[in-house]
Amino acid sequence: MQVNITLNPSASRNYTVFIDELSRICLDVKVLIVTNTTVSALHLKSLKPMIQARELHTLILPDGEMYKNFESLQLILNACFEHRLDRKSVLIAFGGGVIGDMTGFAASIFQRGIEFIQIPTTLLAQVDASVGGKTGINNPYGKNLIGSFWQPRAVYCESLFLKTLPKREFAAGVAEIIKMAVTFDSDFFAWLETHDLYDEKHLRHAVHSSIAIKADIVSQDETEQGIRAVLNYGHTFAHVIENQTQYTTYLHGEAVAIGMVMANTLARHLELLSEEECHRIQTLLEKYLLPTRYIIDDVDMFYTHFFLDKKSANDAITFILPHEIGGYTIAKGIEKERVLDALKECNAS
Amino acid sequence: MQVNITLNPSASRNYTVFIDELSRICLDVKVLIVTNTTVSALHLKSLKPMIQARELHTLILPDGEMYKNFESLQLILNACFEHRLDRKSVLIAFGGGVIGDMTGFAASIFQRGIEFIQIPTTLLAQVDASVGGKTGINNPYGKNLIGSFWQPRAVYCESLFLKTLPKREFAAGVAEIIKMAVTFDSDFFAWLETHDLYDEKHLRHAVHSSIAIKADIVSQDETEQGIRAVLNYGHTFAHVIENQTQYTTYLHGEAVAIGMVMANTLARHLELLSEEECHRIQTLLEKYLLPTRYIIDDVDMFYTHFFLDKKSANDAITFILPHEIGGYTIAKGIEKERVLDALKECNAS
Repeated sequence: MQVNITLNPSASRNYTVFIDELSRICLDVKVLIVTNTTVSALHLKSLKPMIQARELHTLILPDGEMYKNFESLQLILNACFEHRLDRKSVLIAFGGGVIGDMTGFAASIFQRGIEFIQIPTTLLAQVDASVGGKTGINNPYGKNLIGSFWQPRAVYCESLFLKTLPKREFAAGVAEIIKMAVTFDSDFFAWLETHDLYDEKHLRHAVHSSIAIKADIVSQDETEQGIRAVLNYGHTFAHVIENQTQYTTYLHGEAVAIGMVMANTLARHLELLSEEECHRIQTLLEKYLLPTRYIIDDVDMFYTHFFLDKKSANDAITFILPHEIGGYTIAKGIEKERVLDALKECNAS
Repeated sequence: MQVNITLNPSASRNYTVFIDELSRICLDVKVLIVTNTTVSALHLKSLKPMIQARELHTLILPDGEMYKNFESLQLILNACFEHRLDRKSVLIAFGGGVIGDMTGFAASIFQRGIEFIQIPTTLLAQVDASVGGKTGINNPYGKNLIGSFWQPRAVYCESLFLKTLPKREFAAGVAEIIKMAVTFDSDFFAWLETHDLYDEKHLRHAVHSSIAIKADIVSQDETEQGIRAVLNYGHTFAHVIENQTQYTTYLHGEAVAIGMVMANTLARHLELLSEEECHRIQTLLEKYLLPTRYIIDDVDMFYTHFFLDKKSANDAITFILPHEIGGYTIAKGIEKERVLDALKECNAS
């Protein structure tokens, strides 16, 4: 299966996402695979024979979001220099979102930009991070605050690499799949309600559908000037939750699951979403044992945290709210009291 | 005077270079001026009243090529975070090529890219670095090896800021002007032979002509896949000279002047350029007291150094050679012996 990503206006930057089609990548240049300790232990041996290159090098970084920083970026760049990569060389990001984001960022700034290939090994990275060209690192001021838009040359999503994924990480990926369905595709949402993603065939279909939705959005709005912001449904809340829990309690997809329920509650308060639709979404999230509640200590402080989010240009907050399953509203200028009321209800429910 | 920079295919990234037209910049956003100790002492007081912004901040970095590194990049990014700049904010690069390259690079990766304005204060930066969107920093492996292509929103070239420029730095800028004329415009070269650039009116004309040439090249080839490489005339040699002298003996434009003479000698050996044309170019360089000779200790080692240059993708060297004044050849695969012969002649002359 394939999804073509068409980026306007520059046709030269289009690329393809291949789903379960990786057998052999032939590159007559120097190639550096960037991966982490966990993924390399499990899968590097099966990946390497699939890559035919003039020279094939590997860099293994420590595993974890806390290593998504300037130091790791420097390690990738230094490996590029040590192996004397040039402007025709290719980086391969082999891992989850952290490896993908950092490797893509390194590719975008090594000698002012070289090509890279994504081979995402988590469900979250397959359906979300690997498509769309957002790259970056964290720093003490926040997540993904430094980075670039840099499109991969190709993305290979392989079921093979998902087989070893822990259940919680699998569910975190499902959260983003559900997110796509809620905001953009009611048929897909209904399909998800009746199909089990633990079945590999169904999972492949869901990965394909999610990527197709994201590809469509990204094609329309590569650099998030408009509709791409809709992909942040649930994220405005999730970022605050992740921040307040120092990124240690929840996986990103788990925080997004809670964030979607919060957004839904606000949408219901604003009479955009029915109680029944809220219930359907929450039920689907809970089917995959995703968390849907987070007790907020101080709703006022939680509200203040929204303004630290980088998407809040010039101090205005935008909420992405479903106005039905399969439809979204980009809501600006909602009164603070309405937001606080929704947060209080989430706390009490 | 103005020059419009048209970048295909994305019209949204076009911008204008204004020559002596800066009276007031109005930006209803947060603005951070990045400058260095030298420029701020001389000109910050006259610049500031020209910038009208919602908030105006300044970051003053130490002056010098040795500060064009990751640490200074971090200082710029941290200043952006400390002043809580957002995606609508604008950076202003107020200084020479070092400040311009670093500020542009920071702008390209802060929150995945914000706008920046170039106000170059050296002649070299006005005619070369500020136009074309190359940004970057040095690292222990070499110059400008990390960076991005990121176009400014506008460039303001002001004669005012050149008045305090030391003579050597002025001449280094003239070297790049001569470079443009030799490769692309014989009429402009003839004009340069008969006009004195110490005259402000003539200088303005020369700045305008150089920028117009560069704008034309960059429009055709933003990311240096083809014709843009011609701007590297003299640079293949200059990079080795700068490297061998640890970047301390020559200003970049001075090394380029020597590099042009070396390239001309090679071009003459290959019967591309006449002795008379070589002489005319050298005479014009010497009129501005630019160096045109460099004694090479070991021509073999000098030759080996070409291959360390980042432009040598997959181990092939490309020389940009004039085949007449106003015309260039992109020469690949020249035999090593021919190059060594030319280098030896330069040594002996």
